[in-house]
Amino acid sequence: MRTRPLKVALLGCGVVGSEVARIMTTHADDLAARVGAPVELAGVAVRRPDRVRQGIDPALVTADATALVKRGDIDVVVEVIGGIEPARTLITTAFEHGASVVSANKALLAQDGAALHAAAEEHGEDLYYEAAVAGAIPLIRPLRESLAGDKVNRVLGIVNGTTNFILDKMDSTGAGYQEALDEATALGYAEADPTADVEGFDAAAKAAILAGIAFHTRVRLDDVYREGMTEVTAADFASATRMGCTIKLLAICERAEDGGSVTARVHPAMIPLSHPLASVHGAYNAVFVESDAAGQLMFYGPGAGGAPTASAVLGDLVAVCRNRLNGATGPGESAYAALPVSPMGDVVTRYHISLDVADKPGVLAQVATVFAEHGVSIDTVRQQGRNQSGGDAVAIEQGGGRREGGEASLVVVTHRASDASLSGTVEALRKLDTVRGVASIMRVEGE
Amino acid sequence: MRTRPLKVALLGCGVVGSEVARIMTTHADDLAARVGAPVELAGVAVRRPDRVRQGIDPALVTADATALVKRGDIDVVVEVIGGIEPARTLITTAFEHGASVVSANKALLAQDGAALHAAAEEHGEDLYYEAAVAGAIPLIRPLRESLAGDKVNRVLGIVNGTTNFILDKMDSTGAGYQEALDEATALGYAEADPTADVEGFDAAAKAAILAGIAFHTRVRLDDVYREGMTEVTAADFASATRMGCTIKLLAICERAEDGGSVTARVHPAMIPLSHPLASVHGAYNAVFVESDAAGQLMFYGPGAGGAPTASAVLGDLVAVCRNRLNGATGPGESAYAALPVSPMGDVVTRYHISLDVADKPGVLAQVATVFAEHGVSIDTVRQQGRNQSGGDAVAIEQGGGRREGGEASLVVVTHRASDASLSGTVEALRKLDTVRGVASIMRVEGE
Repeated sequence: MRTRPLKVALLGCGVVGSEVARIMTTHADDLAARVGAPVELAGVAVRRPDRVRQGIDPALVTADATALVKRGDIDVVVEVIGGIEPARTLITTAFEHGASVVSANKALLAQDGAALHAAAEEHGEDLYYEAAVAGAIPLIRPLRESLAGDKVNRVLGIVNGTTNFILDKMDSTGAGYQEALDEATALGYAEADPTADVEGFDAAAKAAILAGIAFHTRVRLDDVYREGMTEVTAADFASATRMGCTIKLLAICERAEDGGSVTARVHPAMIPLSHPLASVHGAYNAVFVESDAAGQLMFYGPGAGGAPTASAVLGDLVAVCRNRLNGATGPGESAYAALPVSPMGDVVTRYHISLDVADKPGVLAQVATVFAEHGVSIDTVRQQGRNQSGGDAVAIEQGGGRREGGEASLVVVTHRASDASLSGTVEALRKLDTVRGVASIMRVEGE
Repeated sequence: MRTRPLKVALLGCGVVGSEVARIMTTHADDLAARVGAPVELAGVAVRRPDRVRQGIDPALVTADATALVKRGDIDVVVEVIGGIEPARTLITTAFEHGASVVSANKALLAQDGAALHAAAEEHGEDLYYEAAVAGAIPLIRPLRESLAGDKVNRVLGIVNGTTNFILDKMDSTGAGYQEALDEATALGYAEADPTADVEGFDAAAKAAILAGIAFHTRVRLDDVYREGMTEVTAADFASATRMGCTIKLLAICERAEDGGSVTARVHPAMIPLSHPLASVHGAYNAVFVESDAAGQLMFYGPGAGGAPTASAVLGDLVAVCRNRLNGATGPGESAYAALPVSPMGDVVTRYHISLDVADKPGVLAQVATVFAEHGVSIDTVRQQGRNQSGGDAVAIEQGGGRREGGEASLVVVTHRASDASLSGTVEALRKLDTVRGVASIMRVEGE
């Protein structure tokens, strides 16, 4: 074993960074044995260097992150600051000064992954970021390496723990969105400003990264269609239950059936209770991968938290250190396929649509005509009374049993149709006199 | 991109080998882009070279595997023959002649992994074997690389699809073992001689490989305690249901609580329905990994079959080819921890024991005394009528409601105890006049 240590600079010492430092110290012998050389924490850049940090030598702490990455003796920079700047500049500076980088920064990777990969390659350095997607779950490495000889067709994942906690709570207790969010906040699963999670921004960044790796194609954050889950209601869960489904916020990356393009999207969707993702509870994450040869795979685990994220960071650190001792680099960006990314309108899936309609004869015929005119084929139609959302659905007897001039609820489940056709259908439905409102539109996935 | 191809020799062209050859041909451009050089099938060694093999150039086919691996121009040998010999000799010959090896051979890796790793290292070659455990599921790579900075404490897996199919069938239909096995055989999930699967030999080989990687310790096949699942009955499933459990054949690799030793074992066990492994149906495999920092991870997918296994083989092939272009090798054997492997008697878990007892006063006191004398603490005791195994359990009223001199069934669930203590308890119970027989002993895991 080499005795000269590999030197690591840690940028950021919050929830994740402090765990990285702790494990590097307490498991130093294991890391050395696994790498083939000692791994030394050579510097820690933080915003407030005067704060006492347990287990970290104060002499290592600095406020000057730029000077740290420019030192020249650093082998690996671990970036756990998050956000776009100064992380981006620090990472490229690290490459320029002969260091490889391990990052947990999903926002930066989703926005500037291509440029960062190019900078790493230019300088012959590694860029690893297992921790950027789904925390501790090994996902980037299996996609980049284990499935390198296979053809991935779909990635379907629960990649945000906060929203899964909220939706799981709504499902199991019947709570509304706000009540479930309040509990998530009280328990520390949701931040004071939960926008990034509940509006799907966090999941969209991960979807961009996953789609890029899965399809060997650059997928930018702007390419990802995004819908949050703040409008999911208890009534939607009641509908889902009647369908034998639950509702999850999913990141979905798909290759088109003709193989010529890909799509990436984040939105709430119904999935059958029999689907493995339906059993992913609480703040856990899981990603379902479908490929030509391997078939269906699922990766499950904690998607966030200091220690789990640190586990992923340290796995990357060991790999990068080994590469360095070998004088080699790991796999870089693989974007050779360069498939076009199609807009949301091209996505084909099924839909569950709840309409508030006038309760009178002829309504179903009108509604069905609109679907037919837009080429959207109907699978089932059910009528529900306005105040029976928790009860069993009643097979429709058009107009039967309802007070003339009252309101009824019509639930339509479609066969597979493009998002553009469905949007056209909904627009036309809104114009019908007999349609008082479109209560909800939910995609149905994983069938 | 390099234009000179990397040359691959394929040993074996059965279910897996023919899929490897097919994908290498149909996805040649993708493989070249991902490796950075063309990957060429340079030879295929089979037992019957005169048989027509669709999609494979007959000029490549040979019966002389030894000459193929000795050619000297081969970069990577893919071994999908299985069994100990001639696979072992061919692999070591390949290393001696400058080739790296990708193998799917669990039996060989479990028996001779250390020697094969040593031979690979001696010659500066790679030895990869993702396909040897749980088919397509990326598992070896995540354990060897993603979790390289973490400390794995337990691996709990369903690693044999045949037995999972049989047990799942028994659970869902109430069928007995033989009936479920017959169906598995008819559907092609079980071989004509199912011994290797149902007696746990296949799972034990995988447990040895997983334990070795997880604990950085050599674990030989002989170190793995093994119990098959042929004696699991419909009555055991009825008991499991009453416990809120199901029964799975599990491979369990554990670090002792004091960290100073490890154990590896394969046997049927009850696991709670709430455990993610309980939802693994049919012939699917899944492996649950618990580590210090990452927490609980699960990897799920098809554990066998031509295409899934080929996916794992090809992932390894891409990695080995990349290493070769880099002039580097991947991680070799990591056995630095060299922890002692403890015998089964040291394993600590909970037990579910069904006893046939005389239905008279004093029996419970006698039975409870035997448990106490052996230091095994009882969690719950239930009495069941002989013919009520499908009904609800009745909380015991000792002797109450039973005909004096008749028989009753006593179900004891223990707190955690060592296997040695439990064995001593059972031996003593068998000597009691009032105990007519020990109907079943089942370990309870995953709580």
